Amino acid sequence: MLKVLILPGDGIGQEITTQALKVIDCLNADFNLGMMLEHGLVGGNAYDETGSPLPQATLDAARQCDSILLGAVGGYQWEFLERDLRPERGLLELRAEMDLFSNLRPAILYPQLVNVSTLKEEVVSGLDLMIVRELVAGIYFGKPRGVEIRDGQKYGFNTAAYYELEIRRIGRSAFKIAQLRNKRVCSIDKANVLEVCELWREVMTDVAKDYPNVELTHMYVDNAAMQLVKAPKQFDVMVTSNLFGDVLSDCAAMLTGSIGMLPSASLNQDGFGMYEPIHGSAPDIAGKDIANPLAAILSVAMMLRYSLNQASLACKIEAAVNTVLNKGYRTQDIAIESDLVVGTNKMGDLVVEAL
Amino acid sequence: MLKVLILPGDGIGQEITTQALKVIDCLNADFNLGMMLEHGLVGGNAYDETGSPLPQATLDAARQCDSILLGAVGGYQWEFLERDLRPERGLLELRAEMDLFSNLRPAILYPQLVNVSTLKEEVVSGLDLMIVRELVAGIYFGKPRGVEIRDGQKYGFNTAAYYELEIRRIGRSAFKIAQLRNKRVCSIDKANVLEVCELWREVMTDVAKDYPNVELTHMYVDNAAMQLVKAPKQFDVMVTSNLFGDVLSDCAAMLTGSIGMLPSASLNQDGFGMYEPIHGSAPDIAGKDIANPLAAILSVAMMLRYSLNQASLACKIEAAVNTVLNKGYRTQDIAIESDLVVGTNKMGDLVVEAL
Ligand SMILES: CC(C)[C@H](C(=O)O)[C@@H](O)C(=O)O
Ligand SMILES: CC(C)[C@H](C(=O)O)[C@@H](O)C(=O)O
Repeated sequence: MLKVLILPGDGIGQEITTQALKVIDCLNADFNLGMMLEHGLVGGNAYDETGSPLPQATLDAARQCDSILLGAVGGYQWEFLERDLRPERGLLELRAEMDLFSNLRPAILYPQLVNVSTLKEEVVSGLDLMIVRELVAGIYFGKPRGVEIRDGQKYGFNTAAYYELEIRRIGRSAFKIAQLRNKRVCSIDKANVLEVCELWREVMTDVAKDYPNVELTHMYVDNAAMQLVKAPKQFDVMVTSNLFGDVLSDCAAMLTGSIGMLPSASLNQDGFGMYEPIHGSAPDIAGKDIANPLAAILSVAMMLRYSLNQASLACKIEAAVNTVLNKGYRTQDIAIESDLVVGTNKMGDLVVEAL
Repeated sequence: MLKVLILPGDGIGQEITTQALKVIDCLNADFNLGMMLEHGLVGGNAYDETGSPLPQATLDAARQCDSILLGAVGGYQWEFLERDLRPERGLLELRAEMDLFSNLRPAILYPQLVNVSTLKEEVVSGLDLMIVRELVAGIYFGKPRGVEIRDGQKYGFNTAAYYELEIRRIGRSAFKIAQLRNKRVCSIDKANVLEVCELWREVMTDVAKDYPNVELTHMYVDNAAMQLVKAPKQFDVMVTSNLFGDVLSDCAAMLTGSIGMLPSASLNQDGFGMYEPIHGSAPDIAGKDIANPLAAILSVAMMLRYSLNQASLACKIEAAVNTVLNKGYRTQDIAIESDLVVGTNKMGDLVVEAL
């Protein structure tokens, strides 16, 4: 029996997760998936109900499940809370507590959506790249950190740091994924300026020795940002640190023009994973039945493939999404004239129908 | 008498600077500019000749000049030197020694070159944004830093740090520039995760009070990378830290498709500045007479405008570049079929002719 923890979170997190649950219900009913669901709180709504963005109950539930499906966290009303109580904090702690160090962020262009991209068709058509982002170390978690008075002035500081083993394990993650793809890893750093990146590059080069059939190249992060805009199809797998991965994966996702379509996975050493859309909680459109639920639905597919060993059901979901797109249905974020624009709920129903 | 230090540097730095010098010679001869030139070494060639990427003689010369024109630094043959001897080190030290904290990186799309961009015409046509990057602090210079053994493992670390006053002065820079433009500053940070960025945001908000006619907004760096790809024309002036500015300015520059066209300025408190193309030393095409000299030539224009109080001559150079582009001449990097492709030298001559 597969046990999955559902954490809808804030903003559109609620309504898109509802659509993903419809898909799970359908897989349970018609395809004998046998997935048991638990529900929990995280983010702003968790703070509102319990005083903490990551309640102990959620963490306990996470530890007993096979994987987590997350919606999104954050919203204007919680921005003025102190740092430790903010919604993002719940997400960061969940990542750290479950040791979800390997964040997989695919940037895939759906052929039906090539017109939605701001880039020219020949530059992005067929785009399929995977960003592997280290998720539980680096400057996000490095110490010392803070704001204090120094020389009579306010002084803010953070520490970008990696241990060798932290680099090694995310490196292995990337190489393993590359073996299943086009066998090319591009490691992104700023080794010409930062010592922590010198170590990064050294360890990546060492890890590569264990994967002789995978090609490793290195690129500076500023150049990577340029190359993503210039010729994104040159990349297969990109591996990088927590902060660089945050920026580059959002840039890469936007190349497709449809971040409402993109799921992500955050995995630990044992394949336990948290799955979530890469888009945020979009509080401005929450509750309006216009958010795109496909990233949440495709997150279920990613979960089935990466954590639950159900690749064939994953393919079924992906095929259903394709069918719906082929019929011309679009939520507003991915619509151009002549498309059939539908709401969040209807899109969920259409995918279930196609299943 | 204006005194300018010429530092061609490495790779294509040499040949593109030669073209810029032709333009200066022409301005001296025909427009009575009266610019006196000194020549110096920086980067890899400086290391080869003197053992240091920033020889004392260069630094002394810089201190006696009104501004600096730089080509580019770096090359494969120096990549395996120890950190302190590498070409980039010369550049970083020159920035720090001259306190060139305000790095202006315009991303402008030339109407003649709209087809060179990888983005759709409607997304980028008319693009004119200015990135103001802090250049002498942040993680580039923060301490402590290094690689050491900790808990029996290699541990690499850097410090991202800002003093209040360092943020304040780059903030003022950005607001002053915005006053001459469309009066909108977007400050980029990652304040939801990093304390140093919380201070950044706080100080920017405070600086804004002195510029009531300029609108200040804040954006997270990951979102900024997305928005640059999605709708770059939403921005007027972006202000950000050293590292974020490195990445975002390259991303923004590439939106235009023609980084061979873009100059940059690095200014200190007194308006003393170093001017250089944003592109690098491109060792793979060095000496082949194919590099685009227009960024170097336009760097001279930027210098005349920002440091030497010669805006009308700056306009003349820019007009000459426009004339050459209008006639259909292109270096290979910005050429599409039907253009007249010319080499580095010829392009320099064409601009001089147009002057
Ligand atoms: C919400 C925020 C803390 C988070 C991050 O920076 O990791 C988000 O941007 C992401 O990429 O998942
Ligand atoms: C060469 C390198 C040190 C430099 C930087 O990172 O600042 C370059 O990328 C730049 O942007 O001017």
